[in-house]
Amino acid sequence: MRAVVKTSSEPGLEMIDVPMPELGPDEVLLQVKATSICGTDLHIRNWDPWAQTHVTPPIVVGHEMCGVVVDKGPKADGPEIGQLVSVESHVVCNRCAFCRTGKGHLCENTKILGVGRDGVYAEFVAVPAANAWPDPPDMPYSIASLQENFGNAVHTASVPLVSGRKVLVTGCGPVGVMAVAVARALGARLIIASDVSDYRLAMAKQMGADITVNPATGDVVDTIMDVSEGEGIDVLLEMSGAPSAINEGFTSLKSGGEAALLGLTSAPLEFNLDDHVIFKGASVYGIVGRRLWIDWYQMRGLLRSGAVDLSPIVTHRYALDDFDRAFETMASGECGKVIMFPDPQDADGPLE
Amino acid sequence: MRAVVKTSSEPGLEMIDVPMPELGPDEVLLQVKATSICGTDLHIRNWDPWAQTHVTPPIVVGHEMCGVVVDKGPKADGPEIGQLVSVESHVVCNRCAFCRTGKGHLCENTKILGVGRDGVYAEFVAVPAANAWPDPPDMPYSIASLQENFGNAVHTASVPLVSGRKVLVTGCGPVGVMAVAVARALGARLIIASDVSDYRLAMAKQMGADITVNPATGDVVDTIMDVSEGEGIDVLLEMSGAPSAINEGFTSLKSGGEAALLGLTSAPLEFNLDDHVIFKGASVYGIVGRRLWIDWYQMRGLLRSGAVDLSPIVTHRYALDDFDRAFETMASGECGKVIMFPDPQDADGPLE
Amino acid sequence: MRAVVKTSSEPGLEMIDVPMPELGPDEVLLQVKATSICGTDLHIRNWDPWAQTHVTPPIVVGHEMCGVVVDKGPKADGPEIGQLVSVESHVVCNRCAFCRTGKGHLCENTKILGVGRDGVYAEFVAVPAANAWPDPPDMPYSIASLQENFGNAVHTASVPLVSGRKVLVTGCGPVGVMAVAVARALGARLIIASDVSDYRLAMAKQMGADITVNPATGDVVDTIMDVSEGEGIDVLLEMSGAPSAINEGFTSLKSGGEAALLGLTSAPLEFNLDDHVIFKGASVYGIVGRRLWIDWYQMRGLLRSGAVDLSPIVTHRYALDDFDRAFETMASGECGKVIMFPDPQDADGPLE
Amino acid sequence: MRAVVKTSSEPGLEMIDVPMPELGPDEVLLQVKATSICGTDLHIRNWDPWAQTHVTPPIVVGHEMCGVVVDKGPKADGPEIGQLVSVESHVVCNRCAFCRTGKGHLCENTKILGVGRDGVYAEFVAVPAANAWPDPPDMPYSIASLQENFGNAVHTASVPLVSGRKVLVTGCGPVGVMAVAVARALGARLIIASDVSDYRLAMAKQMGADITVNPATGDVVDTIMDVSEGEGIDVLLEMSGAPSAINEGFTSLKSGGEAALLGLTSAPLEFNLDDHVIFKGASVYGIVGRRLWIDWYQMRGLLRSGAVDLSPIVTHRYALDDFDRAFETMASGECGKVIMFPDPQDADGPLE
Repeated sequence: MRAVVKTSSEPGLEMIDVPMPELGPDEVLLQVKATSICGTDLHIRNWDPWAQTHVTPPIVVGHEMCGVVVDKGPKADGPEIGQLVSVESHVVCNRCAFCRTGKGHLCENTKILGVGRDGVYAEFVAVPAANAWPDPPDMPYSIASLQENFGNAVHTASVPLVSGRKVLVTGCGPVGVMAVAVARALGARLIIASDVSDYRLAMAKQMGADITVNPATGDVVDTIMDVSEGEGIDVLLEMSGAPSAINEGFTSLKSGGEAALLGLTSAPLEFNLDDHVIFKGASVYGIVGRRLWIDWYQMRGLLRSGAVDLSPIVTHRYALDDFDRAFETMASGECGKVIMFPDPQDADGPLE
Repeated sequence: MRAVVKTSSEPGLEMIDVPMPELGPDEVLLQVKATSICGTDLHIRNWDPWAQTHVTPPIVVGHEMCGVVVDKGPKADGPEIGQLVSVESHVVCNRCAFCRTGKGHLCENTKILGVGRDGVYAEFVAVPAANAWPDPPDMPYSIASLQENFGNAVHTASVPLVSGRKVLVTGCGPVGVMAVAVARALGARLIIASDVSDYRLAMAKQMGADITVNPATGDVVDTIMDVSEGEGIDVLLEMSGAPSAINEGFTSLKSGGEAALLGLTSAPLEFNLDDHVIFKGASVYGIVGRRLWIDWYQMRGLLRSGAVDLSPIVTHRYALDDFDRAFETMASGECGKVIMFPDPQDADGPLE
Repeated sequence: MRAVVKTSSEPGLEMIDVPMPELGPDEVLLQVKATSICGTDLHIRNWDPWAQTHVTPPIVVGHEMCGVVVDKGPKADGPEIGQLVSVESHVVCNRCAFCRTGKGHLCENTKILGVGRDGVYAEFVAVPAANAWPDPPDMPYSIASLQENFGNAVHTASVPLVSGRKVLVTGCGPVGVMAVAVARALGARLIIASDVSDYRLAMAKQMGADITVNPATGDVVDTIMDVSEGEGIDVLLEMSGAPSAINEGFTSLKSGGEAALLGLTSAPLEFNLDDHVIFKGASVYGIVGRRLWIDWYQMRGLLRSGAVDLSPIVTHRYALDDFDRAFETMASGECGKVIMFPDPQDADGPLE
Repeated sequence: MRAVVKTSSEPGLEMIDVPMPELGPDEVLLQVKATSICGTDLHIRNWDPWAQTHVTPPIVVGHEMCGVVVDKGPKADGPEIGQLVSVESHVVCNRCAFCRTGKGHLCENTKILGVGRDGVYAEFVAVPAANAWPDPPDMPYSIASLQENFGNAVHTASVPLVSGRKVLVTGCGPVGVMAVAVARALGARLIIASDVSDYRLAMAKQMGADITVNPATGDVVDTIMDVSEGEGIDVLLEMSGAPSAINEGFTSLKSGGEAALLGLTSAPLEFNLDDHVIFKGASVYGIVGRRLWIDWYQMRGLLRSGAVDLSPIVTHRYALDDFDRAFETMASGECGKVIMFPDPQDADGPLE
């Protein structure tokens, strides 16, 4: 079958022929209907220091997808053949103390599709049956594919209490604007979004932000103090990993506020624990992955009720054969989610 | 000044002239702009057993209102003269262990306006400055008046987690339909509402219920099992106090579910603790009043963001002079909130 | 092998020869070192209505035990051969929504050892590897056996906040007195215990109760009000299932208090929701089983630190051959935990 | 009356005669029975940068104390004349949004005794009646005086869940060793304490630490990994403010762990948000003051039940006239709490 593969320890990706995946006894074989690009995939393509230490070529790349079950191992529970499913990309051990206490997202033996085992930029992929999440048959493939990424937003916006509160979202990439949408759906009082890209701020507005601010042209902290009557924000959802945004976010945070951090900083930063956390009596939560499977149930609820509509963030569709152009679009930052279809016939909108 | 008074220990209310209220040092004097009728006021008018043991005539009745500050005691902090305010009807001591640990709604020395001290169906009323909640000057008087009752709905719907979940609201009087609206604003996945009145079920639908069911004409538990794929509900908001509704609600509750109880049953009931609570591992919360002042801040957030729009539930407006007709309307059950205006010029809509 | 079996649908148990258990691929075979008797086992022996509807003879009875791993199925992770383990008696499916969201104790497909599948009053038993909890090699067999029951006490006393608070434990059977010990270990301010048996109240005192009261000879509510300066209790741990105890417990509960209910009432009861729950703003939690596996980790912590010492509650030891005498002792109520040893050589104290 | 005063903007303190305090209408006048020294008082004596920006001479210094009510203002509720009380040093406004939502410890108008208004190193002091916490008449003055500081330890150890868990306390000054005692009382599984002073580590051991480690002579992280079977700690209580200790603490923290931070760092530090917080899915809580008045009730419970015994940490007693020697002892670090008595007759142990 065809697959997009990191073939050697250098920048770039190649589409090549690879053998069909082997199907384990607890696994299902999926025909990939749609896949989407995450920031992690860019790191792997660029072969940056993180990728060099976490990825061993050759490996099929990609971890966001939906597909249809075409085969099942003999011990595989769960979805039946023909069922449309989305995929949780974290394959966990179910045996460690984290997995055994409802904290599977912290599993110490996690293997990630497209990072630690073969991924989903391919015609087919085998995953544990437990990782295949049944979708309604009429869910658009684009939405079904990006659900895994949506789960990061749901996780981030669900740990602090956003309802009735003033919320700042720093970083308006796809997961940031999805966090805006979740905060809106959960009844936030006021949502402010910051990013260095006006394109992305426009997307944030479309997904429900009340106020947007570009630090290149406006002062984030001043803006927040203006619109919050000098009080600051109750909740920070940090999706950028940028030290300046982190600093602005914590400076704007009220005493007793809550900060949920998803964006990675890639390096230690200067941080004022006294002013940002201790004197404020603030609570800070590190966010990683999706709480298994609480956040998937939560996603299902938010999507089926219509409380969140993700369709505006699907901005580009490509054939998987066109993965290079798709990655260029993603790298440009002038996009929402970029979806790729192994079979162009499966596209749920016009291809670029 | 004119006021609606329970003058003697028998059914009925009278409008009579009473002296202007005395203003304590920590109090503000309010000119009443609008007042609304709560179930408690019906009990007092009807002089039922509860009223007979809790109310000592003569007393000015009523506890839901908004008004304008016209005078302040020498030690009164808070809103300035001319400010529009809503009123929290529970006057608490600020000294007991409950008040001192963030649980003022459980204050053991609570006095309630219109029940334990003179109330608000009058031209003027004096209340502690702390009980006067500043409103935006452009808030319609009807909405400002009913906020106190809205606070019961916010409290009830905020204690369990409703976001992304299936919620049943039993009892669709005004506070029930406001609970529907709050659950909607907080991102509930599915909202089912039950009541014996089709009028009220229509109101519930207007405020955001997905499914309504009248136990007189449909089976509540069957309906819920149908629409929840046999799972039942995650959250019960019990606003009726009716034993049959309580039983239906708990029967429909999933294992691990949460039930928040606001409706009063007035008498002990047969209750199956094993099946309804223990085997299910359910959590049950008694709800009384408004968490001081968390729920008022929460209300402010939900109203200012537009997440909740209360205007549809204001169905009737009367001059306070017409209080008898207003009470008859309230007693009929064919209404949402019934608002009364001491000065008909203040009415924010056509009077009946 | 020898096993204690419910052979037919009538009262009584028999020790008979049965085939060795079949070992599933994910299972471990355990040589039973010690077993203990739970109230459920009495119900099954007595063949009461509950037993008649939940148990289908023939079945090996018993669910509390420790043992040594003597064989493993080909897919069994977890403890190695020779390891001493305690056993979680709830075999859960790991696939339902409860299992997938950290609520395995509410699994809708639970099978209980000795109730829904063959149990542990036998020389050997096969259980899923996941249900075998490794113990330190020097843990006394009696303690290792009763850990599963201890888990009920840990679960009950961990859901409400007991530290620094006044706690009432109603019902001082073995799980009740273990709840006393847990409340003590977690820093409760004052522990009151009630029971109709003075023998059991003495055991409660030994495990850490400050005050004990027998409703046959003293007024529970009066006693509590006396020792709490008229305030009542912050936390009720209800372990009896007796309506009178439930009523006394809720009457003594402070506003804002928490009640965790483990004892089963077997029938609906008259319950005053208004006074006991709603007006008090109380929280009530149904408790079932052990939170998988949070409560097992919690148990491990409490036992290894020495914060809880369970040895005083092991009051009787029998050879398994003597199961009839052991059951008579358990039925008398004049005992703590009654332990039985398939091999009398394994007894960690003198046999009766 | 005599009082210890910061008389001018330079290092040092003086005992001088000052007028008796004025008594406000809501205040009580206290005759000081015992006072104790906190790190803050050292900063003020040393006149370091923090003190220079927060303190305006002349001001009576000191904020930890107990005393007897000798007069009451006309509006003062609360303790009667003759009552022994401890004092909460944070005088809050009761009007801001924090005070009105159960977060008085974050009051934006807080005035601290001995920092923002006259303090307690004096024969008499006037404080709001609400700040005077009644003590049992037989509570030793030393213990009653240090309760306010104990409240910091209770707050810090109560926000994360310590029961049944492995806890690291970094920094074993008086508040650190009190946190050790609280963690012990709440049922921690294992308590590790680190400090650069062997004197203080001995004190930590006496108050309940299982393992102590001095980073000058042993590797903190290695020690923790050894004693936790490679798992690390569940909970970090950071009481030192030392960047090296903070780093060791977070490095030792398990995924999903909780860190409560009380120690002030005085300056921004290099902090690895990715490794310490985000990838771990950790929760970090800033701790300031005492939750009003939850932590005072919690203290009362822990002390009255005997779950915590604070007497070992009272290591030195001085007459207040000897304040210079008392401060030298405190500055040496070779001490627990240092207590000073305005009237040496009140000393509850031998004076130095």
